[in-house]
Amino acid sequence: MPLIQVDLERDLFESHHEELSRAIHDAQIDSLGVPADDLFQVFRPHGPGEIKFDPGYNGVDRQHLFLIRITMVHKYSVASKQKLYGAIVERLGQHGVRAEDIQICVVENGFEDWYAGLL
Amino acid sequence: MPLIQVDLERDLFESHHEELSRAIHDAQIDSLGVPADDLFQVFRPHGPGEIKFDPGYNGVDRQHLFLIRITMVHKYSVASKQKLYGAIVERLGQHGVRAEDIQICVVENGFEDWYAGLL
Amino acid sequence: MPLIQVDLERDLFESHHEELSRAIHDAQIDSLGVPADDLFQVFRPHGPGEIKFDPGYNGVDRQHLFLIRITMVHKYSVASKQKLYGAIVERLGQHGVRAEDIQICVVENGFEDWYAGLL
Repeated sequence: MPLIQVDLERDLFESHHEELSRAIHDAQIDSLGVPADDLFQVFRPHGPGEIKFDPGYNGVDRQHLFLIRITMVHKYSVASKQKLYGAIVERLGQHGVRAEDIQICVVENGFEDWYAGLL
Repeated sequence: MPLIQVDLERDLFESHHEELSRAIHDAQIDSLGVPADDLFQVFRPHGPGEIKFDPGYNGVDRQHLFLIRITMVHKYSVASKQKLYGAIVERLGQHGVRAEDIQICVVENGFEDWYAGLL
Repeated sequence: MPLIQVDLERDLFESHHEELSRAIHDAQIDSLGVPADDLFQVFRPHGPGEIKFDPGYNGVDRQHLFLIRITMVHKYSVASKQKLYGAIVERLGQHGVRAEDIQICVVENGFEDWYAGLL
């Protein structure tokens, strides 16, 4: 049950949210091996001024900020996480999202920290 | 100081936010024993397409997604968390939110990770 | 790469978001010593009823809730965090945000939990 939260510009959400959702979900399936129906995503479209970033931090040519936050159980290796990031970046790139514009932030918890429809 | 963040459909927010807030807060008081005035909640109403989920993941008949994220200090037992989930589900059910449609996600931190009006 | 998420009332966002962003960012630079261009902030303006709080919890005279969530790598001391809270409160105060109205919540993760434009 990774929970995916995406903050992005409103125009991009409105024109492409289905494709972007699918891209992130497919990346998760491919890299973490979660079931194909393990889909929990929240998109938050933003207006002007709501997303603030520096266009050059750490030598990256950043033109937008496409923020993906992932909350998931602490059980994946560092290598799996790196694979996940690579898969997300590759698949989003197929829809015109630049690798430089993506930020991914993972927060982990335990199995006991979830309820998803069944006690 | 549990911090409660709720992502839900805009119609449901507009028609029921007071009752839903109270239900979640009462569940927290009953199950965790927090003070009655320890209330910190943020609701985020969503439009079409912003909340994405699978209608059958893990055998649950899911028709909507009502997402509750809880950030709280790491001090509650697994039993207390289970009690909290049960109390939330029961009380939200009294306002028409189906158990199957609820997702709860807890993230923990330490006492030193909070500021709430007093240094 | 601390990630800063701010939930605030829409009026305050619209009238002051540039100054508030700068205040929080300067506080982070001063207290944590992060690079000046390490800026990742998301503001979420809220309408009536979306932010719920108690006006007196823990003896604080709370009139609004200005919520700052910070996700950052687990490497700062408790003293550094306290310094960060103090710096944020002081600098926001210069723009009229009352100390009593601020809530700060930190969640930590590891270096391997971030992607920011470069694999």
